[in-house]
Parts: sequence; C-alpha cells; structure tokens
Amino acid sequence: MNELTSALAAALPDGRVLTDPDVVDSYARDRTFVPPGRPLGVVLARSRDDVVATMRWATEHRVPVVPRGAGTGLAGGATAVDGCVVLSLARMTAIRELSPQDEIAVVEPGVITADLDRAAREHGLMYAPDPSSYEISTIGGNLATNAGGLRCVKYGVTRDSTLGLEVVLADGRVLNTGRRTMKGVAGYDLTGLFVGSEGTLGVITAATVRLRRAPGELATIAAEFTSLRDAAAAVSAIVAAGCRPSMLELMDRTTLQAIDDWKNIGLEPSTRAMLIAQAEGSADEMAALCGAASFVAVSSTPEEAAELIGVRRLAYHAKERLGQCLVEDVCVPRSVLPEMITAIEEAAARHGVLIATVAHAGDGNVHPVFIFDRGLAEPPEEVWAAADEVFRAALDLGGTLTGEHGVGLLKKRWLGLETGPVAAELHQGIKQVFDPLNILNPGKAI
Amino acid sequence: MNELTSALAAALPDGRVLTDPDVVDSYARDRTFVPPGRPLGVVLARSRDDVVATMRWATEHRVPVVPRGAGTGLAGGATAVDGCVVLSLARMTAIRELSPQDEIAVVEPGVITADLDRAAREHGLMYAPDPSSYEISTIGGNLATNAGGLRCVKYGVTRDSTLGLEVVLADGRVLNTGRRTMKGVAGYDLTGLFVGSEGTLGVITAATVRLRRAPGELATIAAEFTSLRDAAAAVSAIVAAGCRPSMLELMDRTTLQAIDDWKNIGLEPSTRAMLIAQAEGSADEMAALCGAASFVAVSSTPEEAAELIGVRRLAYHAKERLGQCLVEDVCVPRSVLPEMITAIEEAAARHGVLIATVAHAGDGNVHPVFIFDRGLAEPPEEVWAAADEVFRAALDLGGTLTGEHGVGLLKKRWLGLETGPVAAELHQGIKQVFDPLNILNPGKAI
Ligand SMILES: Cc1cc2nc3c(=O)[nH]c(=O)nc-3n(C[C@H](O)[C@H](O)[C@H](O)COP(=O)(O)OP(=O)(O)OC[C@H]3O[C@@H](n4cnc5c(N)ncnc54)[C@H](O)[C@@H]3O)c2cc1C
Ligand SMILES: Cc1cc2nc3c(=O)[nH]c(=O)nc-3n(C[C@H](O)[C@H](O)[C@H](O)COP(=O)(O)OP(=O)(O)OC[C@H]3O[C@@H](n4cnc5c(N)ncnc54)[C@H](O)[C@@H]3O)c2cc1C
Repeated sequence: MNELTSALAAALPDGRVLTDPDVVDSYARDRTFVPPGRPLGVVLARSRDDVVATMRWATEHRVPVVPRGAGTGLAGGATAVDGCVVLSLARMTAIRELSPQDEIAVVEPGVITADLDRAAREHGLMYAPDPSSYEISTIGGNLATNAGGLRCVKYGVTRDSTLGLEVVLADGRVLNTGRRTMKGVAGYDLTGLFVGSEGTLGVITAATVRLRRAPGELATIAAEFTSLRDAAAAVSAIVAAGCRPSMLELMDRTTLQAIDDWKNIGLEPSTRAMLIAQAEGSADEMAALCGAASFVAVSSTPEEAAELIGVRRLAYHAKERLGQCLVEDVCVPRSVLPEMITAIEEAAARHGVLIATVAHAGDGNVHPVFIFDRGLAEPPEEVWAAADEVFRAALDLGGTLTGEHGVGLLKKRWLGLETGPVAAELHQGIKQVFDPLNILNPGKAI
Repeated sequence: MNELTSALAAALPDGRVLTDPDVVDSYARDRTFVPPGRPLGVVLARSRDDVVATMRWATEHRVPVVPRGAGTGLAGGATAVDGCVVLSLARMTAIRELSPQDEIAVVEPGVITADLDRAAREHGLMYAPDPSSYEISTIGGNLATNAGGLRCVKYGVTRDSTLGLEVVLADGRVLNTGRRTMKGVAGYDLTGLFVGSEGTLGVITAATVRLRRAPGELATIAAEFTSLRDAAAAVSAIVAAGCRPSMLELMDRTTLQAIDDWKNIGLEPSTRAMLIAQAEGSADEMAALCGAASFVAVSSTPEEAAELIGVRRLAYHAKERLGQCLVEDVCVPRSVLPEMITAIEEAAARHGVLIATVAHAGDGNVHPVFIFDRGLAEPPEEVWAAADEVFRAALDLGGTLTGEHGVGLLKKRWLGLETGPVAAELHQGIKQVFDPLNILNPGKAI
C-alpha cells in the first residue's frame, strides 16, 4: 500500500481495501475488451458507511472512483481508469425488507438480480426486470444502466420498477430520493436521474423497488422462419393482436448456427430466424399469428417452456465460442425492425464482418454481435466501420444507440449524434452539480 | 401595451399578445384559491417558434414566464407572479402524428387529454393517463405535473407513458429529449427530469407519448361499506387476489353525502364508504372479495358501468357546492391506507374542519378535500392546522406530500420535510443549470 491507500484503509474497517496487483486486475474490466487503466486499489464495501468513508477520502484526495457491481456490463462502464479506486458493491447483498402487502422490496446494490426475483416468488410476486445476465448481474448495476431484459416488453425496464434510492454523493453525503409509494411528484425526479447514469452522479447503496404479481402459467412457443422479414412480421402481428407477450425474442441464422454447433439443437438448413414468444394468453393464438413460420413448437409443460427459452439463453455464450464479441444494442421503433435487420446484414456484407443478431424484438431492441479474432486487443477497423453504419442506420430509423446497455466508454464517440449539443451541455451541467470534482467514474456515459 | 410588451408583440405574429386587464386576469389563476400576482400580459402561443421568441425576449428583459395549460392545476403551479408573462400553450392542439404500428403519438402540449385518448381509440389503442380532469386538462399540464388518474393503478402515471419531449429552454434554445423507442439509455434521463418539474425547467412544446392496446370489455362493480376500514380491506384483497384492477376508487361518507344532496343517488344512512372497481377479469370475483360490503352493484352493460363510474366523476363538483376547497393529495403505501384515513378523520375532528375524502385507493393516493367558507380569501387557520397534521401523518406512514398534483406554491412550506436539505440543494443546482436567470415559473415547485 502507498500513502494514499493506507489512508483509505485506515478510514475503513479491516479487510476492505485490496491492493494486490492480481486481485486488483480482476476488478478492472467488465465484459468488454476495453483495455482498463491501472487502479490504486479496490474497496469491497459492506455497508453504506464504507461507501461514505470511501467517497470522503476520494474527495479529500481527488481520487477517481469507479463503482462496480458484478462487472457484467457491455459498455465499459465499470472499466477502471488510471489511478482510480474500484468501489465494489458486490458484498452489499442484503434484502433489507420485502413487503408482500405493499409489493415493494428494499435491497442493497450487490443483490444478484435473480436472487431478488426468487425471494419475491416466495410470496407470489416477482421482480420483473430480467436481463439475460440476471443470474450474474447486480441490482446496482441494473439500476446504473437502466437494464432491460426479456420480460421488459410487458413490464418495462429497471426504471419502471424503481421507486426510490439511497445514494452516496461524490462528497460522501447521503441522499434519499423517491419514495415507498407507487407514485409521487414532490421535487424533481432525482430517482430517474440516477437510474441509467452509470455511476457518474452517485453511488447507489440501496433501492426501493416495485414487485409485481407473478403471472400464472404462461404459454410459450418457438417459431422458425425461412426469412427474417417473416419473423419480424410475426412480431408485429402478435403485438397488434393484443397478446401482450411478456417475452418476444428473435434470433438470426448466425446465432442459431452458433448454438447448433455447440449444443446440436437440430437446426434446419432453411431456417433463417427463430422467434420465442411467451404470454399469459393462448399458445395457439400466438402460433396462428406466425402464419409464415416453417415450424412452430408449442410448449405444453413448464419444463418444455424452459427448454425453448433455454435456447435463447445460450445465445451469448454460443457466440463467445466463435471469437471476441462486440455486443451492440440499438433500439428502433418496432415497425422498422425489418429495415434495421436489413441494414445490419448489409453492413456485415459490405465490411466482411461476422454479425450474429438477437433481439428483444417486442421492444425493437436489437443486439448485433460483431465477432472478431481472439488474438486482437481491440476490434479491427472493419468492425468499427460496420458498427458505425449500424449506429447511423438506427438513428436514421428514429432509434437510439443503446436500448439497455448504456454508453459507458464504448459509445461515447457516437452519443453526440443522438443527443445533440444542447443536451450535451445540460449533461455536463448536471454532472457538475452532483460531482464538481469529476471523481465519479470520470470519462464515462456523457 | 408598455414598452416591454410592445417589444414582445413585435417579436411575434399578430394577435399573440394580450394585455387587456380582464383577459389577463382570466389567465392568472389555476383552480386553487392562491391569490395571483399581476402579469404584464399573456402570450397565446400557436407554435414552437412563438415559444422560442417569447423565451428569447424574456431572457433579454429578465421577465418571469409562467407556462400554462388549461389552468386546472390544484397546487398553484400556473398561478401568475407579479410582472410575469403568462405563456399559454392551450392553442397548440395538433396531434402531429399517431402511429398504430409503433403505438406512439407525437402531440402538442395544448391537446386536451381526453382528445388524445379518443384519437387513439379509433385505432384500438388508448392514452392511459386519465386524471379526473381529463376532459379539461392539457397534455402539457399533465406532463408538467406528472399527472395520475383513475387508470394509473394499472398503467402508471404520465411519466410511464412519456418517451420523449421537445422543450424550449429558458434562453430560447430548443432541446429534444428521449426517443421514439420503447426504451433507451443514451445520456441522462432529461425526459424524466422535465416530467413533474411544473414549468420550472423548460416549456414543453411537444411530446412523444406511448399508447397502449385498449382493453376489451371491463367488469365494473360499486360496493358500499358501513366502515372505511372494511372498504380499505377490500382494496387490499382485490389487489392481493391478482385482479389487476384498472380502477380502484374510494369515496368517504362526506363525499357521498355531497353527491347525494346534489344528485340524489339514494344513499343509505349506514353507508360510510363506497368502492368502485374495474378490471378485465370477472366482476363476481371482485364482488366476492368485498366480503364486508353492505351492498354490491355489478354492472352488466357498458352503460351501467359508466353510470357507476359517473358517481366518482361527480365528486369534485359536488364538494365545490359545499364551499371553497383545498384539495389535498397525499399518497401512502397501500397497506397503511386505513391508518391514513383514520389520521384524516382525527385531524378533521380535532380542528373542527369539514374534510371529504376520495382516494385512488389502489395506489394509496388519498385526496382529503378541506372545505371552507366561500367568503374567505384563503383557508382559515384551522384548515392549515388540520392539513399540516395530515401531511405529517402521511410522511410518518412512509408516504409523500403529493401523489399527482405537484408542489406548486401550496406545498412548498412542507417540501423540505419530505426531501431533506441535500435534495433541496440538488434541486437548486439543477434549476440553476436549466434556468440561470430564474425566469421560468420562479418560486414554484422546489
Ligand atoms: C451474458 C450477458 C447477457 C446480458 N444481457 C443483458 C440484457 O438482457 N439486458 C441488459 O440490460 N443488459 C444485459 N447485459 C449487460 C449487463 O449484465 C447489464 O448492464 C447489468 O445491468 C450490469 O450489472 P453489473 O452488476 O454487472 O454492473 P457492472 O458491469 O459492474 O457496472 C455497470 C455500470 O453500473 C455502474 N454501477 C454498478 N453498480 C453501481 C452502484 N451501486 N452505484 C452506482 N453505479 C454503479 C458501473 O460504474 C458501471 O458504469 C448482459 C451481459 C452479459 C454478460
Ligand atoms: C376536477 C378536477 C379533477 C382533477 N383530477 C386530477 C387527477 O385525477 N389526477 C391529477 O393528477 N390531477 C388532477 N387534477 C389536477 C389538474 O387537472 C392536473 O394537475 C393537470 O395535469 C393540470 O393540467 P393543466 O393543463 O390544467 O395545467 P395547468 O394547471 O395550466 O398547469 C399546471 C402546471 O404545469 C405547468 N405547465 C403547463 N403546461 C406546460 C408546458 N407546456 N410546459 C411546461 N410547463 C407547463 C404550469 O406552469 C403549472 O406549473 C384535477 C383537477 C380538477 C379541477
């Protein structure tokens, strides 16, 4: 330890500060390839007071702090910067309260998303936001990125389940935002401002979240199509018919092929896309709306349903087997999903890049995954050129650069194209109000 | 016109600026008793450019601007301040776009809430947020107060239907926030910051809002109870049973009496409360959950349902017949609704004040209406004393001072009790970023 980290260790209970280089290294990256800076050390916070002490020390010594949940982020948000301290919230795992009557829970940021969902299920409730990573991501990371998930087509994103926050500000002061009630409008919406702010405005140390009644049995189908456009048309048809799906996921041929190569799912040569849909209504109705499908599997038991959905959950890891992945995250109005997918295919062809696409199709949220050589430290030029085309196509179609992963470091170059200079100035002004010394996750998100 | 208003008139197309004192007076108040200041004049904006020109002029001359929709507000938010210009958005009534495919609309702020809902219904969709005032309030006012309504127990408040905004800032610059897509996380949530900011951060000149599939036929019941606690218990039972009501409204004896005196609804002497519930499910199930009810009316036709709900819509005007009204708006966790209602009854008794209560009970949002003598310019001391007790009780029960009406001028005295000094400092900091000259609705909301 040097003088700085010793002062930090002295301000905290024993064992909270790690400086062993190997250990520190393991806290420096998220799930992107972005090369991290060298941190001074890692704080493993176990309480709000640990966070307060860390932020006071950081303010006193002008040390950058990078908040970190599970490090599953896909935008470089939790990537360490030089000379920073990584502040891990992963050990703050208490569910402080769970009220079935009021359908709320008060949780610490290190709670794993699926653990909260399981705790709620014991009372016939659920925690709705379920990123594909929900078995490994934390609530704090979900809040800081406003994570989406499979169910968010019906229940909304993390913001829509967040009622209030406890936040430690850059200078160590504690702020409580929002409320325990379903609605309220006393003062500006600071809760909403922190959600999605990627650790640049404050460190979330607790959240009051909304739970919802868990649905009863769900109807699940998996439909195969010989064209992506037919699959996209089925998406529109299912929504327009009022099926209110709680899941509507699309996978392209490249993704399915990667899964088949790995797990042998018996993929037909002619299949170009698969749609997985789940709703409270009737499976037959949804199946009928997939008129152009070459094959539709309808689950008749929860086990069969889990199997169909399991295919979707394999997608990310199947692709990782093909090489390094730049996982992208554009979102467009649902009606232009076919145009977005065409633009991705064209960009892939034009630049000779392998792109495998999955989509939270019901929300128009498309994840083109750009696959590149494992030996490279960063994506090669042609990947960035193709990604640039995809981003611009999304914006031209009335969409956004990021539906749920955030801007982090990866998308900062393009952010101005979407938000424009006036918003950029306001972002900086807000940052200045909350973090005048620019020590909270500097260089990220805005 | 004086020199100032002449300069304003010169910067705008003909007929936009009104200075006739009687006309100006009619734009100076909202639906509260709050005595307004004297405005210099009124601008009837017809376009975004009119708003831009007004704000540029206001910035140049340091003139306060009070944005105004329909003036139906219940917090004094649209109340004129001395020497201001009232900027009415009521003439900006275009629905610029309505896309059934993407289930969104782009609307100007002067659109009447119910008009947007009707336009959506033509496509099998609806605009969900429906304040009781929806036939007279504007979308702009709804956004600026984050209005709730009867349906928001199922579909959320105005924020939950807002995707993006066009805003004219204090200095006349135009900002576009948010997006046309269902989700997105590029940059801080400026959309959320403007929603509920009561005209203090910018003037909303257009909004991209989310529409939803209109439900099919709804089951509607009205249940009468001989005790308020029994009614509150039925609220909990209906929610816990998973009926997912899209309306769950409660009225107390004083309210029902006022309606009966006016419209003769045949109120039983023993009835202390009425619950009106609507859901997509079965009326019989809901009726069965009102176990302690003395009488349950189940509607079997849409006309009968409209009649049951019509009783609720009479509540406000029935109370106005009794005297002047201070309409309050606390919101508590649903499980403590009985405690909140008891606290209101106790405050009424202790201070000898007539309080009639209605509640969006499914959300725990309670409107105690304090009735006072028509001859008075302001509520008498005992009304404020009783209101103070009610506010403190709501906060003690884990609730908020305002579920949906906003802080405006009326609730500023109490705001600090809820948000605390750190939030207050951040509110001021944010205000400073957006409106450094403090010309936008000064003295309101924060
Ligand atoms: C296989 C896989 C599937 C995925 N699927 C999805 C998906 O479906 N939907 C989706 O939205 N994302 C998905 N992701 C991305 C990722 O899981 C989410 O962004 C998740 O919310 C990150 O949580 P985390 O705990 O890992 O946060 P981290 O990666 O540790 O951090 C993410 C950001 O949040 C900040 N942060 C973390 N905790 C706090 C805190 N307590 N206070 C303040 N700031 C904090 C960090 O500084 C960083 O900017 C996926 C990732 C993987 C690897
Ligand atoms: C009978 C009755 C029933 C009601 N029921 C409900 C209810 O159920 N739920 C509920 O939430 N409210 C209710 N209200 C209150 C009121 O109708 C709402 O607050 C409504 O949202 C106000 O809309 P408005 O157009 O009248 O706005 P105004 O009263 O004109 O303004 C309200 C606030 O918004 C600001 N504002 C208006 N337009 C803009 C704009 N374009 N840009 C920026 N700021 C702007 C104003 O400065 C002011 O601060 C009720 C009122 C009445 C009279």
